[in-house]
Amino acid sequence: SAQLGEAANGRGLGIDVQLCSEVPADNETFLARNFTEQERAYCSNGSCPQSSFAGRWAAKEAVIKAVSSAAGTVVWTKGAGAPLNEIEVLREDGMAPVVVFHGEAKDAVEKAGVKEVKVTISHSGSYAVAMAVTQ
Amino acid sequence: SAQLGEAANGRGLGIDVQLCSEVPADNETFLARNFTEQERAYCSNGSCPQSSFAGRWAAKEAVIKAVSSAAGTVVWTKGAGAPLNEIEVLREDGMAPVVVFHGEAKDAVEKAGVKEVKVTISHSGSYAVAMAVTQ
Amino acid sequence: SAQLGEAANGRGLGIDVQLCSEVPADNETFLARNFTEQERAYCSNGSCPQSSFAGRWAAKEAVIKAVSSAAGTVVWTKGAGAPLNEIEVLREDGMAPVVVFHGEAKDAVEKAGVKEVKVTISHSGSYAVAMAVTQ
Repeated sequence: SAQLGEAANGRGLGIDVQLCSEVPADNETFLARNFTEQERAYCSNGSCPQSSFAGRWAAKEAVIKAVSSAAGTVVWTKGAGAPLNEIEVLREDGMAPVVVFHGEAKDAVEKAGVKEVKVTISHSGSYAVAMAVTQ
Repeated sequence: SAQLGEAANGRGLGIDVQLCSEVPADNETFLARNFTEQERAYCSNGSCPQSSFAGRWAAKEAVIKAVSSAAGTVVWTKGAGAPLNEIEVLREDGMAPVVVFHGEAKDAVEKAGVKEVKVTISHSGSYAVAMAVTQ
Repeated sequence: SAQLGEAANGRGLGIDVQLCSEVPADNETFLARNFTEQERAYCSNGSCPQSSFAGRWAAKEAVIKAVSSAAGTVVWTKGAGAPLNEIEVLREDGMAPVVVFHGEAKDAVEKAGVKEVKVTISHSGSYAVAMAVTQ
């Protein structure tokens, strides 16, 4: 159907900035709810887990905004209550991060007509930023 | 004419970061010059007016950069002296913000061949950031 | 050949944030390695060279990420060791910045199938941010 075709509102974009210290990177319940096992392994093994988790958190928020922007409707109906581990951000060294959707997030993104989302992440000093664009 | 058709320089993009405390959110003259009544009502009624005004300010600056980038010419001929209330950033809960142009800004954007600008905003800690892309 | 045609992975994007004080703007060896003569003249003559150099540094990093995102492969094989003066960011007042590639960077970008990269820069308070998108 048309709903499963093109995004209603064209290309979508999202940005997010995050004060790294606000992300509770040592709260296991928070981490399990919002990050996949693979994400947690990657972030925990880096030189600065706090910054890595903040960057990925910003990436997930940017992806939500980009998909909502493309859809032109409310896509995440649970709002701030949605678990973010359904939006997975993976990467290999020297390559751009890749976004993979799971569960209800996957269904919502498909229903919104969004086929691919690209994301990019950076952090420096006390902040992490990320932006996402739907293709 | 060709000038009223496609933007000369393709898709345009703009980013802006703003230290929230630098935006004089209690200066009525500044606010009236740069924000519409609807924007002022939205920002003043939020949980943190200072951050909301800073985020919208960043959004307006990002929009100016994106339109200039698409046009490939100087679009805002008044430079820093232009009133920013001609670039209105509206939103509804759970939806992406929408940009509406008024007055001379509307004319300049049309003349530059730009048909639509999308914008996204975020703030955390002491900073607000925004980015804009012309469609 | 196909390799010299379209970017393998579609449109690419990159963002970078930089704590301005971390950029060694008074280290001549660092500056010569990473900025062209024209960039150094522009940044040194501005009202705040530290912020200008940080903004341009962020722009170059964002460009590298955007090209890598478009290519879908490792483009900068030297990693953090690559001299950034091969990615030049020029601008005129009131206009968007322009990216020009030189030397090995030029070859790598062409090989990746990327024809143009747009970039936008901002700084405020202690931070500079930039984003880049391949066209």
